[in-house]
Amino acid sequence: MDRPIGVFDSGVGGLTVLAALRRELPHEDLVYLGDTARVPYGTRSPETVVRYAERVASHLWQTGIKALVVACNTATAHALPRLRAAATGIPVVGVLEPGVEAAVAVTQTKRVAVAGTEGTISSRRYQDALARRGVEAVGVACPLFVSLAEEGWTAGQVPALVAEEYLGHLRGGPDTLILGCTHYPLLADVIQAVLPDVRLVDSATATARVVARELRSAGLERSEGPGGARFLVTDNLDRFADVGTRFLGARVDAAELVDLPDPNGPFAKP
Amino acid sequence: MDRPIGVFDSGVGGLTVLAALRRELPHEDLVYLGDTARVPYGTRSPETVVRYAERVASHLWQTGIKALVVACNTATAHALPRLRAAATGIPVVGVLEPGVEAAVAVTQTKRVAVAGTEGTISSRRYQDALARRGVEAVGVACPLFVSLAEEGWTAGQVPALVAEEYLGHLRGGPDTLILGCTHYPLLADVIQAVLPDVRLVDSATATARVVARELRSAGLERSEGPGGARFLVTDNLDRFADVGTRFLGARVDAAELVDLPDPNGPFAKP
Repeated sequence: MDRPIGVFDSGVGGLTVLAALRRELPHEDLVYLGDTARVPYGTRSPETVVRYAERVASHLWQTGIKALVVACNTATAHALPRLRAAATGIPVVGVLEPGVEAAVAVTQTKRVAVAGTEGTISSRRYQDALARRGVEAVGVACPLFVSLAEEGWTAGQVPALVAEEYLGHLRGGPDTLILGCTHYPLLADVIQAVLPDVRLVDSATATARVVARELRSAGLERSEGPGGARFLVTDNLDRFADVGTRFLGARVDAAELVDLPDPNGPFAKP
Repeated sequence: MDRPIGVFDSGVGGLTVLAALRRELPHEDLVYLGDTARVPYGTRSPETVVRYAERVASHLWQTGIKALVVACNTATAHALPRLRAAATGIPVVGVLEPGVEAAVAVTQTKRVAVAGTEGTISSRRYQDALARRGVEAVGVACPLFVSLAEEGWTAGQVPALVAEEYLGHLRGGPDTLILGCTHYPLLADVIQAVLPDVRLVDSATATARVVARELRSAGLERSEGPGGARFLVTDNLDRFADVGTRFLGARVDAAELVDLPDPNGPFAKP
């Protein structure tokens, strides 16, 4: 089917998921929406995250997408059930379950840590999902990682010290760490240096595989021709292009500004 | 006059200004609005900052204030002229001019640096205002300072290294540094350690003095009775109370949630 897959995040972080989708599904068209007028979601209340996520999803649905990827851990943690309930007939995939599945597959000791935003960790969605699979879970909020990744401070003394401060206490504990925020893969090297014996799970690749599986099972996949990507943001095109290039691992070409004022109006379903 | 003074910021940072207003104007009632559903303003486009600032100012005007303090450097840089033009008959004071005046008064060498958000620095409002007074100015964006201050990482190795990275190159240069973001006073000690011979200018106190002067000259000041403070936020009450207490230097009591969806509607003037 020729319609694109919609991918959304609060800002640039979801571009790490978009990059994985490109590798996994090279024939698919992708439309990415970064809600840069309201980023970050990680420190907002669940109610506000739901309101913002519904607005963004609603816009993507109106553009005509065949599947929605919630490429933001905080939005997944707070809003996925609501988005899924609203999206009849369209696969809606978040980043949380694929990351949990991947971690459960690699842990030997059944002890897994999750690093994420304040919102993601305090929602306990990761911890609960792991517990349901018989895995002991510990959540660690690492808010400074987002700023470090956005500033491009991903190597050197400062990120090393920050990673040690947040995660050093996990040495000798869990054998697996889920990078439960789409910004954190940029800091994978410094995190790995702090926890050399721990397996890092980046949910981007796992998510892309789940999306591929869901498209196939729904008969929605496209199996030929080159896929393209379109980028929409709600604010500050220049910053998105600058910072986004580091997250995508390629130039972010020709992003477009869309006006999505924070709504009071009804939530438009697909 | 018994009406309160309105004070607004994107989040908790303006509480450093509120604390200064309390010291300078102990008889005045203050109503503080932190736009925590849309914080931070520092990485947004000028147009979006103007839209958010107008919405917040409009709400405060509707509650009946006698003066408005824009306790956010980014909002001052982008939106002050618009707010002032709209607010007929009400003094509107930003944090930028008072900070510039204070810096001009203390510099011996007529070379001043300004640290601020990306938005504030790239607006060049500080640099231009200093240049108009014959002072050579250099602007430095220090985005990580906001996260450090909000996380309470205001002492120790990490903030010291971050401050060195941003500001170390100024040693031997300007003799004065304006802390051009309301978050930065929390990091004054580590900044001073990096620049031991530089005078730091915190615009909070300077702003409070300008507000006092404007109230007196307009005959609006209140000269007896204890003043109180009321706190409004647009999201996440608990986080505002937790983080805000560090910025206010006192407990943030009983903040109230106000619903201010990002508008498309008309800008309500006072």
